[in-house]
Amino acid sequence: MNISGLGEFGLIDRFKKSIRLDTSVIKGTGDDCAVIRSSGAKFMLFTCDMLVEGVDFLKKTDPYLIGRKAIAVSLSDIAACAGIPRYCLVSLGLPRGTKVSFTDRLFKGMRDISSKFGVNIVGGDLSRSAKVTIDVSMIGFVEKRNLVLRSNACKGDIIFTSGALGGSLKGKHLKFTPRVGEARFLARKFGLNSMTDISDGLIQDLGHILEESLAGAVIYQDLIPLSASAGNIKNALYDGEDFELLFTLPLAKAKRLIRENARGFHAIGQIVDKKHGLLFVDNRGRIRKISGGGFRHF
Amino acid sequence: MNISGLGEFGLIDRFKKSIRLDTSVIKGTGDDCAVIRSSGAKFMLFTCDMLVEGVDFLKKTDPYLIGRKAIAVSLSDIAACAGIPRYCLVSLGLPRGTKVSFTDRLFKGMRDISSKFGVNIVGGDLSRSAKVTIDVSMIGFVEKRNLVLRSNACKGDIIFTSGALGGSLKGKHLKFTPRVGEARFLARKFGLNSMTDISDGLIQDLGHILEESLAGAVIYQDLIPLSASAGNIKNALYDGEDFELLFTLPLAKAKRLIRENARGFHAIGQIVDKKHGLLFVDNRGRIRKISGGGFRHF
Repeated sequence: MNISGLGEFGLIDRFKKSIRLDTSVIKGTGDDCAVIRSSGAKFMLFTCDMLVEGVDFLKKTDPYLIGRKAIAVSLSDIAACAGIPRYCLVSLGLPRGTKVSFTDRLFKGMRDISSKFGVNIVGGDLSRSAKVTIDVSMIGFVEKRNLVLRSNACKGDIIFTSGALGGSLKGKHLKFTPRVGEARFLARKFGLNSMTDISDGLIQDLGHILEESLAGAVIYQDLIPLSASAGNIKNALYDGEDFELLFTLPLAKAKRLIRENARGFHAIGQIVDKKHGLLFVDNRGRIRKISGGGFRHF
Repeated sequence: MNISGLGEFGLIDRFKKSIRLDTSVIKGTGDDCAVIRSSGAKFMLFTCDMLVEGVDFLKKTDPYLIGRKAIAVSLSDIAACAGIPRYCLVSLGLPRGTKVSFTDRLFKGMRDISSKFGVNIVGGDLSRSAKVTIDVSMIGFVEKRNLVLRSNACKGDIIFTSGALGGSLKGKHLKFTPRVGEARFLARKFGLNSMTDISDGLIQDLGHILEESLAGAVIYQDLIPLSASAGNIKNALYDGEDFELLFTLPLAKAKRLIRENARGFHAIGQIVDKKHGLLFVDNRGRIRKISGGGFRHF
């Protein structure tokens, strides 16, 4: 059997089932970051993301933006757990004929966004490869009380996104701002029940929250903010790489966020009982059950 | 200009010079691991290694051994700083047609060696790529007093390796035992001045110690242990991927190690003044100055 028969998430599940973790690991595979007990008052967050030429960026993409994105996607993972990013390593696979002007721009893109977010690039590894391949691993920290996972969405919670969705491939996927500040604000001032970042598309990433929380949801077309690059609602539901936060808050807190809202958070629906699955209410009031969809590597 | 004009280490230097690190970073790029202050009594070690099909293993290599090696090279980096390996992430780039039997064996190779060394595989990332690409990032810890870097080799130190060298590509590079236990033993019982692992060849890796320590060295052909797979002394000097420890001890401690030696450590030479560079004494007593050589990616 080919791995495409299992699919990306089937393959991850297969691996996850066979793995043993000791008690210092709060959360292994299956969230935006691994969560590890550390000696201080904080948990350690640990995440990695691999970008490959032809999949995550093109040969002609400005290398500055490639470097920027390589760091930004990991920043977004740390943000999704409400953490503070601190250290990263960069593994770089480069074809033999790569120009120094390319690596200079790539490094500058990495440096600029890292220093903006207070992240130290503490090392890395260089290898020869057919296509440009960049893997960034990042360590962050989060106060124990502020940790947010995908797994605690509760019936009645209001579902929010931190910004407009869809059409990211037209440019936003290379230029997005990781929502580190927004996530810290939300966790400290409101206390979230669950959170993830939208990397594989709203439907798929909301699906992760529902799966981990054993819950269902209703979302409303009229409430989902379309980005200027989105052609229609399908782009907002299924396109990947928006890297906005997707989170849930109990009703009272949600009302307070909406009242105080200065940062463009959008309520898009509500958590319901698991038996309902994921329901989509379109702009004519018709209800449809949605199952799966979104970006998959295999 | 192509990156081959700068070379692997020239490229790393170029990057290193432009990077800013805050005071929580004890050691960034330029050692086997990054060393980071942590809240407890230990330093955190952080390292990554990327393996690429066709460079670090072949398409026909048993995937169990590929998985094993992917973890083992990072274990060797943690060992080189005398640390205890604890957590890792695995980023995996796989071609579309990859068989599930391949990934099952690969995962098993990773799991077996990880659990043997007490390492938790806490997550990872999956991507599509033309060639199988594996990047492992690993976190370890070391008591502050036991940390060993490349940078403190002192005049008069005796230089040791932890085992025989050369010809690793004939098989050892896929099956070597990371010297975690040996490194812990040495750091706790002896207190080392400097250490690295031999990944790029004895001459090149000793060169890293000399560069970081601003020192020179004399090594003796008659003292360098040849592995059974090494054809001649050149293999022991220049072949990569032995993953043995290379370390230096002050004379008195070195004598004690030699006296008590139960683990096959071999004294191969001595640290001298920087002005001498790296001197090689062959088996006829002739002295030759050596500059550079060993495995380079570009």
